[in-house]
Amino acid sequence: MNPKPANASLTTMSELVLPNDTNTLGNLMGGRLMHWMDIAAALASMKHCGCPVVTASADNISFENPVKLGNVVTIEAKVTRAFSTSMEVYIKVQGEDLPTQFKYLSNEAYMTFVALDPNGRPRKVPELIPETEEEMRRFEGALRRRQLRLILSGRMKPKDATELRKLFDEDFMHIEKA
Amino acid sequence: MNPKPANASLTTMSELVLPNDTNTLGNLMGGRLMHWMDIAAALASMKHCGCPVVTASADNISFENPVKLGNVVTIEAKVTRAFSTSMEVYIKVQGEDLPTQFKYLSNEAYMTFVALDPNGRPRKVPELIPETEEEMRRFEGALRRRQLRLILSGRMKPKDATELRKLFDEDFMHIEKA
Amino acid sequence: MNPKPANASLTTMSELVLPNDTNTLGNLMGGRLMHWMDIAAALASMKHCGCPVVTASADNISFENPVKLGNVVTIEAKVTRAFSTSMEVYIKVQGEDLPTQFKYLSNEAYMTFVALDPNGRPRKVPELIPETEEEMRRFEGALRRRQLRLILSGRMKPKDATELRKLFDEDFMHIEKA
Amino acid sequence: MNPKPANASLTTMSELVLPNDTNTLGNLMGGRLMHWMDIAAALASMKHCGCPVVTASADNISFENPVKLGNVVTIEAKVTRAFSTSMEVYIKVQGEDLPTQFKYLSNEAYMTFVALDPNGRPRKVPELIPETEEEMRRFEGALRRRQLRLILSGRMKPKDATELRKLFDEDFMHIEKA
Amino acid sequence: MNPKPANASLTTMSELVLPNDTNTLGNLMGGRLMHWMDIAAALASMKHCGCPVVTASADNISFENPVKLGNVVTIEAKVTRAFSTSMEVYIKVQGEDLPTQFKYLSNEAYMTFVALDPNGRPRKVPELIPETEEEMRRFEGALRRRQLRLILSGRMKPKDATELRKLFDEDFMHIEKA
Amino acid sequence: MNPKPANASLTTMSELVLPNDTNTLGNLMGGRLMHWMDIAAALASMKHCGCPVVTASADNISFENPVKLGNVVTIEAKVTRAFSTSMEVYIKVQGEDLPTQFKYLSNEAYMTFVALDPNGRPRKVPELIPETEEEMRRFEGALRRRQLRLILSGRMKPKDATELRKLFDEDFMHIEKA
Repeated sequence: MNPKPANASLTTMSELVLPNDTNTLGNLMGGRLMHWMDIAAALASMKHCGCPVVTASADNISFENPVKLGNVVTIEAKVTRAFSTSMEVYIKVQGEDLPTQFKYLSNEAYMTFVALDPNGRPRKVPELIPETEEEMRRFEGALRRRQLRLILSGRMKPKDATELRKLFDEDFMHIEKA
Repeated sequence: MNPKPANASLTTMSELVLPNDTNTLGNLMGGRLMHWMDIAAALASMKHCGCPVVTASADNISFENPVKLGNVVTIEAKVTRAFSTSMEVYIKVQGEDLPTQFKYLSNEAYMTFVALDPNGRPRKVPELIPETEEEMRRFEGALRRRQLRLILSGRMKPKDATELRKLFDEDFMHIEKA
Repeated sequence: MNPKPANASLTTMSELVLPNDTNTLGNLMGGRLMHWMDIAAALASMKHCGCPVVTASADNISFENPVKLGNVVTIEAKVTRAFSTSMEVYIKVQGEDLPTQFKYLSNEAYMTFVALDPNGRPRKVPELIPETEEEMRRFEGALRRRQLRLILSGRMKPKDATELRKLFDEDFMHIEKA
Repeated sequence: MNPKPANASLTTMSELVLPNDTNTLGNLMGGRLMHWMDIAAALASMKHCGCPVVTASADNISFENPVKLGNVVTIEAKVTRAFSTSMEVYIKVQGEDLPTQFKYLSNEAYMTFVALDPNGRPRKVPELIPETEEEMRRFEGALRRRQLRLILSGRMKPKDATELRKLFDEDFMHIEKA
Repeated sequence: MNPKPANASLTTMSELVLPNDTNTLGNLMGGRLMHWMDIAAALASMKHCGCPVVTASADNISFENPVKLGNVVTIEAKVTRAFSTSMEVYIKVQGEDLPTQFKYLSNEAYMTFVALDPNGRPRKVPELIPETEEEMRRFEGALRRRQLRLILSGRMKPKDATELRKLFDEDFMHIEKA
Repeated sequence: MNPKPANASLTTMSELVLPNDTNTLGNLMGGRLMHWMDIAAALASMKHCGCPVVTASADNISFENPVKLGNVVTIEAKVTRAFSTSMEVYIKVQGEDLPTQFKYLSNEAYMTFVALDPNGRPRKVPELIPETEEEMRRFEGALRRRQLRLILSGRMKPKDATELRKLFDEDFMHIEKA
C-alpha cells in the first residue's frame, strides 16, 4: 500500500439549511450538523483507504455560532493521520448568510474512522503524508488527541498519557488551534 | 424558578435502524446516531428549562459496538447539572438485536445545551437536584467535564483548570464511568 | 417458547414535531403520527416474539387533541395479548408543550402484527402474561376487539360475534377505556 | 356554499416502495402506508372544502396483502359524505408488481377530517352530492360508520346507536364492502 | 412482446408541498419537483415495459409558474413512444391552490428511460400504440426530440438531424405544444 | 452592483448514494440526482446575486453513466453568465467508486435561476466576469443556449434565433462541450 498525501482525501460538502433541519427558533440543530460532518469525514477517510469505514469516535465539538435557517453550511474534511487500521479526520464547518455574504466559523472537530474489509473486520490503511505546514501540525497533534480519546473511553490510564501532558502546557491551545 | 429533580428530564427514544441509516456493510452511520442523540438530549434539556434550546457542545463520543441494520436503538437522556444558562445532559445508547434478544451498550456521551428566550438570547434555567447516587456522581463530575470543554474550545487556560487536574488521578476513569 | 410478561414488550418513543410533519396551520399530520405509532408498536411486538413482524391491522383511531409544531410526542406501546401467530398492541400517544409543561392525551389505539419466519410466513409467538390490573383488562378486551376486526374486514358474520355483543352493554366504554 | 359532486374530490397518488419504507423482510411498513393514505385523503377533503383540514379519525384498517419493496402503491381517495364541519373520505389502496403486471388490493379504509378556518377553528363545509351507485352506497353507510366512531371514541352510548344496530344484520358486510 | 396502448402507462401522482420542499420565500424548489417528475415518469415507463428502468435523459424544462408552500402538485406521466430499448415519457405538472380552487400549469417535460434486464443491461421494450389525437402528435414529435437529444449529448452531428430541421419551421411551437 | 468573477460562485457538494436514492437494481435515480444538482446550482447562483433565487429552467440532461449504490457523487456548480434578473449555471457531476478509486463523468447540465426581492419579484443581479478560457467559452455559449430555451418554451420563434443557427454548424459540439 502506497502512502498518500493528506490533500488526496479533501472532501467538500455544501448544504442548505431547510426548515426540518432547524428548531422552533430557526437555528440548525446540532445533531443534523453532526450527521453531515460524519458523512463528509467518512467520505474523506474512504478516499484515503479505498474501502468502507465505520465511525469510531467524535472528539469534543463546540458549536461557536448558531447557523440560521436559509444559510449555507460548507464542510471541509481531510484526513490528518493514519494509524494501523484507523484514520483521524479534521472537519471545518463554516456557515454563510448569502444575502449579506457574511461567512463565519461554525465549529471544528476531529473524528476517527476504522477501515473495514468485506467481512466487516478492521484492515490496514495506507500511511498518510502531510505536506503543508498546517497538515504537519495536525499530523503531530494527532498522537496527543489519540491519548485523550483513549483515556476518555477508558482504554488508557491518564498516568501513561505522556503526550497528553502537553495539554497542560501554556502553549497548548496555540498548537491545537493553529 | 423552582429547582427540579434530575429525573423529571428523563427522555427515552427508540429507533429502528433502516437501510438509509446504514453504510454499505449494514452498520448504522455514526452521524445518524449523533443526530438522534442530539434530539433526545435536546428534549431532556427542554423538559428541564421549559423553553427552546440550542446545542452548545458534544463531548468525546466513542462508538463501542457497531449497530446493525434492523436492530433497535434505545436512547436515554437525562440532565446531569444546570449551570447559569446551560445544561449538561448524559446520554446512554443501547442497541438490541430483537431475534436473539441480545442487548448491548453502543456508547455514552455528554452534550450541553443553552436555554434561549423568544429573541434567541440565553436565559436563566432552574437548578437541578440530583437524587440517586448515580445522579449525584454525574452532578459532581460535571464541573470537571466543563473545564475540559472550556480548555478544548480555547476559553480556559489549562493551568487554571483546577478540577480537571483530577483527570490525571489514577481514579479518574472509575469516577467518570461509574 | 416460554410465555412472557406484557411489560417485557414496553417500548417508548419521543419525537419532536418538525415543520415537515405539520400542515399549513402547524398541526401534526395524522398520517405522520400513525407512522410513528406503527413503528413503536412493531418494536413492542418484535420484543415479544423475537422475530420480524408485519402490520396486520390498525383499529379505529380518534385524534382527540391536535399536536402543534415544536411539541413533543411521546408514544408508549405494549403487547396486550398474543394469539397463535399474531399480537395485539396497545398504543398511547401524548403530546407535550414544553414551555408551558402542558401534557395532554393525543390518542390511543390498538394495532395487530403477525410474526414472520425467515421466508415471510406466519410463525407461532409466545403466550403473553398480563400482570397488572390494566394489563389484565386489556387482555380480556382483546377477544372482543378481535371479533370487531374480523367483522369489519369481512372474515366473521356479525351474528357469530358473541363477545362483541357486549359492545352494546351500557358499561362498554368504561371497560374499554379504563 | 354550493354543494359539490363526490367526484370533484377524487385524488390519486402513486408511490414507489423504496428500501426505507420496508422492514427487514422487504415488506412495506403499515405506518408508512397509513402516512400516504392520510395525505391522499387530506388532499381529497381539501378539494371538497377549499380550506386546511386536520385528521379527526381513521377507521379500522385491515392490511390484506403485503406490499413488497419495488412495487408501486396506488391510492385513490374520494369524499363520501360531508357533515357539518367534517368530511368522511374513502381510500382504496392497490399494490402492483410491475414486472409481472400483477395488481392486487392492499386495503381499504375510511378517514375523517375537520375543516379549519385561518384561526384553526372548525368551519362549515359544502354538502356532498353522491352521483354513481357506489357513491350513493358509501354516502348511506357514512351514518352507520359515524356512530361506530362515536361509540369507539366514547362520545355516544351504544344503546343510542340506532343506525349501527344494522351492524348485526346478516347483510352488513355486503352493504359495507360493496 | 405485444404492443401496448399509450394509455396503459398513464400514472398520476399528487404531492402536498411541505416546508422542506421550499426555499426561504416559500416556493417549491425545482429540484424537488424534478425528483417527483422522475419518479412518476419512471413508473409510467415501468408500466409499459414491465421491468426496471433507469433515467437516460431529461429534456429542457421551463418552470412557468412558481408553486407555493401548501399547494398541491399533480403530475401526470404517459409514455409517448417506445424505441428499441428506451421509452420517451411526457410529463405534465399542475399546481393547485386549494382554498381558492385555482389550478395552473407549472411545467411540461419529456424524459427518456432505458429498460433493463436483471443484470442491468438494456433490453427490448414493447411497441407503443398511440390512440388519441394528442397521443399521435406526441408520438410523431418523438423522433424530432430524439434528434435534439442526440445532438445536445454529442451523439449526432447537427447536419444529420433531418427531422430536427423542422425546429426552424414557423409552425414548430404549435406542433410541439399542442 | 459591482461585477463579480465567475469563480466566486463555485460550489462543491459531495453526496453518498444511500439505499433510498436507488432503484431496485441499485442505480441512483435520475430525479434524486437532479434534486442535488438543483440545490448545488441554486447555491452557486445565490452566491453570485446575494439573494433568494427560484429555478427558471433546466436544460437537456443526458445521464451518461449510471451511478451505483455506495458510490460518491461530486457536484460542481458555477455561474456562467448573468442576464438582467437571471443567471445561467453550469453543473458537472462525477461519480466515484471509492474502493477502486475509479472516477467517471456522470453528466453535465445548465440550469437557470431568477433572483428575487423580498416580495418574490425578479430583481437585478450583478454582471459576471469570466476569467479562465473555459469560463469565457461558457460565457459566449450562454446566448445560444438561451435562445434554445426561449424557443423550446415558446417565447421565441425559431426564425429569430440568430445565435442558435450556429447549432447546425459542424463545430457546434466542439464549442459546446469543450
